[in-house]
Order: sequence, then C-alpha cells, then structure tokens
Amino acid sequence: MKHGADIYKYAKKRNCSPDEIIDFSSNINSYQPELNLTLTPQTISRYADSTYRDLKEVIATNYDIKSDEIALFNGATAAIYALIKSIKRKDFYLYAPLFGEYEQACKDAKKYIYKINRITDEESEPTEDSVVIYVNPATPEGSYSDLGKLFEIWMEKECIIIIDESFIEFEALPSLRKRIQEYKRLYIIQSFSKFYSCAGVRIGAIFAHKKSIQKLPQPLWNLSSFDVEFLKNRLQDQEFKESSLRIHKEQKAELLSILEKSALFDEIVESDANFILVHSPDAKKLFKHLLSHNILVRKCGSFDYLSDEWLRFAVKDKNSNSLLNVAFKSFINHS
Amino acid sequence: MKHGADIYKYAKKRNCSPDEIIDFSSNINSYQPELNLTLTPQTISRYADSTYRDLKEVIATNYDIKSDEIALFNGATAAIYALIKSIKRKDFYLYAPLFGEYEQACKDAKKYIYKINRITDEESEPTEDSVVIYVNPATPEGSYSDLGKLFEIWMEKECIIIIDESFIEFEALPSLRKRIQEYKRLYIIQSFSKFYSCAGVRIGAIFAHKKSIQKLPQPLWNLSSFDVEFLKNRLQDQEFKESSLRIHKEQKAELLSILEKSALFDEIVESDANFILVHSPDAKKLFKHLLSHNILVRKCGSFDYLSDEWLRFAVKDKNSNSLLNVAFKSFINHS
Repeated sequence: MKHGADIYKYAKKRNCSPDEIIDFSSNINSYQPELNLTLTPQTISRYADSTYRDLKEVIATNYDIKSDEIALFNGATAAIYALIKSIKRKDFYLYAPLFGEYEQACKDAKKYIYKINRITDEESEPTEDSVVIYVNPATPEGSYSDLGKLFEIWMEKECIIIIDESFIEFEALPSLRKRIQEYKRLYIIQSFSKFYSCAGVRIGAIFAHKKSIQKLPQPLWNLSSFDVEFLKNRLQDQEFKESSLRIHKEQKAELLSILEKSALFDEIVESDANFILVHSPDAKKLFKHLLSHNILVRKCGSFDYLSDEWLRFAVKDKNSNSLLNVAFKSFINHS
Repeated sequence: MKHGADIYKYAKKRNCSPDEIIDFSSNINSYQPELNLTLTPQTISRYADSTYRDLKEVIATNYDIKSDEIALFNGATAAIYALIKSIKRKDFYLYAPLFGEYEQACKDAKKYIYKINRITDEESEPTEDSVVIYVNPATPEGSYSDLGKLFEIWMEKECIIIIDESFIEFEALPSLRKRIQEYKRLYIIQSFSKFYSCAGVRIGAIFAHKKSIQKLPQPLWNLSSFDVEFLKNRLQDQEFKESSLRIHKEQKAELLSILEKSALFDEIVESDANFILVHSPDAKKLFKHLLSHNILVRKCGSFDYLSDEWLRFAVKDKNSNSLLNVAFKSFINHS
C-alpha cells in the first residue's frame, strides 16, 4: 500500500538516519511536546481491563458522545478493515480521491467498488441499500464539505454511511457524529494519530449508535496499556489542544506563504486540514530536488484522478518550513 | 472467553480498586522492576518502520533464530487467530487441556476440532495432513514434555505442527524452535507477556521457516511504538533475565512449601512453569474465602477434563505469598 510515511525507505536511499529526513509527507500534528506521563511497572505488567472503560469515558467526553457509542481498534486502519468486513452488503461507493486503505479493505472483503469523483461529479448517486464512504476533510487536498444534502440522499436510500473524520479537529469543524443516535447506519471513523500527534500509538475508534457498536466484532486485549494511558492523558490535555490549534494556524499560514512566494506551482488548493495540495508540471523534478535536501513530500499519483504532478505538503514546524524555503530557492536557482 | 485476568470484575464485586486484588490468577513474571526507558516525543509522534526490523533483530538474537523467521502480531492471541485462519486444512487436533484461545480460534475459523487428552491418552494419534496444537509447558498444570517421539509421528503424517512455548523461559527448557529450518510446517507461538512481565504490551510472535513466514498475512503498523521500544529494551536486559530466573526459583519454592504445609490439597502437580495446579474437594469454599482476603486464584473448571475442584496459583512475590499463607491459616481455623 502506498502511504505518506516512507521515511525509512528514503533514509536508506539517502544513506542517512530516518531522523535526518524532514518529513512533509506524513500529516501528523507538528506540535510534539515532551511526554508528561509516569508509568508504573504494574501498568506494563498486568492485563488491562479488556473493556477499556476509562479510556472510553475520556473519549466520550472529548467528542461529546456516550461511551457505549465507541468501539476501539488497534489503529484507525484496523477499524476500517474490521468495519468493512463486518458489513454484509456488497456494493460500496467510494467518494474519491480518498485514502488507499478504504479501497484495499473493500478488495480484501471482496466487495464491489464504485467510485464517485467528489470534485467533478455532483450528479452521481449511490444505489439504494449500498454503502457510502466519505473522508471529510478529504485527502489529499484537505477540503471540508458540508455533507447535509448528500446525507439526506444517503438516508433516503437507506445507505450504510461511513464518514472518516480523522482530520476534523485541526480547524474545529462541525462533525456528523452528533447524528449517530438518529441514524443507526452511520459510522464515524476517528483516528487519533493525526491531531493528537501519535502515529506510534495504535488506537483508532468507530463511533456509532450503541446498537450498531454492539454488533461489531471487537478483539479482546487489542490495545497496548501504554497507548491507553498516553491517549487518556493526551485527550484531557487542554494546553496541548490550545497550543496545537494556535501553532497549526501560524505554521499553516507560513507554509502557504512559502508555497505561494516560491511561484513554483500553478495551483495551490485551499485546505481545511493540516496539509496543502499543489500542482506543478515540474513536480517530479522538484520531488527529487527536495529529496536531495533530505526533504520528503507526498507524491499524489497513487490517488484517483491525480498524477505525480500533484504534491502534498504537511503543515510542519518553523525550522522545517525555513529548510523548505531554502530548498525551493536553490531549485529555482538551478532551473 | 474465560481467562485468568479477571481482577477488574472481582475488584468490582469486592468494591475495591484493582490494585488491592492480589492476583494469583495471571501467570505473569512477578519480577517487575522500575521501567528504564526514555521516550522521545518523536517515538510516539511518527509512524514506525512498518517492517519492525530492529525489534526482529533483537528477537532473533534472543531466541537464536533468524529475523526472517519471525512474524509479529498484536499479541500472542492475535498471532494464534491469524495463524489458524491462514491454514486451509480443516482437521485440528488439540492436545488438551490447553488455553481456551486455541479452541475459540478454531471455532471462529470453522475448523473441525478433535481433542487428545495429553495426560491419559497416549495411544491416540492425529490423522494424516491434519493440524496439531500442543502447549509446552502445558496449561493449566505447567508440565514440560519432551515431544521428540510425538514430533516424529506428526512429521511422518505431514501434520502442520503448532507448538506454544509461551512458558518455556522460566526454567530455561529446550525449545523446538531450532527445528523450524528442518520442517516447514512447524510454527512456534511465542508470547513475551509472561516471562518479560508485560501483559500490557501487545506483541506476540510466530517463529517458522522463512518461506512459511512469508506466506502469513501480516497487518501493517499493527504494533505500538512504545511497546516496540519496551520489548527491544527488555529482551536485551540481562539483569532482568538473571534476576527473573533467580527470583522465580526462590518464589516458586516458597509457594510450593506454603501449598504443601497448608495440608489443604490432596494433589499438588509438579510444574515446570510459573504456576502450580492443586486439587481439593473444598476448592470452591477456599476460592471464596481467598477472595474475602482480596486474593484471586484461577478456578480451572473451564479447562477440558478438569473441574472447579482444581485451582491454579501463579508464582508471586514474597509479600503476596505471606498474605496467601495468612489466608490459608484463617481458612483452616474457620473450617
């Protein structure tokens, strides 16, 4: 599967340590404060409470839902695979482009995959009793859509609705999770890795009506006790959230300004998430040039309807931005 | 699924904190030193190397195998489920009694389950081209068997052989993993939770011939980065291993002496692992009495061929042992 996080592969190519790669390809919150967590040997030694009651209560409070409306998995990817596998319906409508994981999970579960281009194809509709998947804000361009009208159409057709809101917190956008009580066939996929800056923590959630949650097969003891402690702590850390929102805003504005001032791109897509999609006929050359500066960005050729002329830049810290700026200038001087 | 680790349920019953339960029911190494691990924010923030190369090298050195002979899963239970699901053969011979997980995983994968009583039934043999499962040292009684003769029979019948060696390190017993290069149908299940005292760490392994490992479906990014760092550290900690072996020996001798001196049991089974199985016609009363002292032991009625007259005690620390001794004395005085 193609994915943004290939620093290990490129570090090997560049013959350097993964730490030396400036990773604009992974969409992880760039605010990464010191860990403020004391672990006792008991946390690690003993079996966790397999219901993860405490963590579910913290998540419920954080997302303003109830704790019996949450199912926890070993990462959002595991949640996606488990959910799709558990659905008996065969016809899946993917609003594309979107993460490669959804298509792969549908293939693994032997589903029929139909794609609707969510940017150009406003007329297409899924069939009755099908399953729809929408990532909001979307990847790879980060735009947020008010899904109100589509939601009505989907409900009328009694579709199972899967909405991935993994990037919704960077700009505190309105969520559809408030509608899980009203419509039992609605499932929200929530990753914590992105906003809470913890790709190494393998916990992801599905939010749904409590009756739908009860029907999901959930493995026993699937979560690391450290990860559980970390996430409980991080979700309750108000300072982390406030700083994240503030720093995200500043750093995104800085990134946008660097991208614009470089004059390297004929298109810069407005984003509601923590990454920016750009287009350049010279993207392939630029990708290589940036790599020679140990800067890794995301080539978007693996996304439906896009080519490697599209590049995606994650919002990163001040230092990374200024190194990017230097690399842009040297690209311009060499062209 | 029935399991030893029910401290949360019993803490609720007893109206106390799980920390107040003295847990003789979980077979976790009682040597639980302070954690000696520094985590950087980057460890948690960024995506791990999805091949887990470093950890595999540490495991390979520790178990004297090669790193391409290892597959890693989100805990030994996940390894068991994935392995059984990946096997096309239908007939599974379980040498019983054994962990409930194996039977459950076979049921989930719709296998035909046959049981061989490994204590009384020395004549029974699996059919040709079937799958055999043997836990060695065994649960719930902890006895280690030299499987040499059985292994020859299984190989002759071209069986797929699954050996669970999760308790083999407490008394440094000879392992069958050295034979994975010779016989491609041999799979060793290795839990790290027990000896390395980390039930909260969700990593378990399958050791097999590299060609068999390549055929196993392994999920991407299934491990917590913290867990990976912890396990790399712990597996290389010689002091931990030496102290564990020494303390285990002392504490097991102490537990055995307490069990014997109590004169409460008409059978005490010799064990090669970190738990001791005992029998008493009064076991049900004793279980309740111990619980009134906040001591939880394992009732063995859920194991094949056993009843709740069998109890299992894990090897625990000095303090737990002396509390157990006090509880035994008060039971005798009240009877």
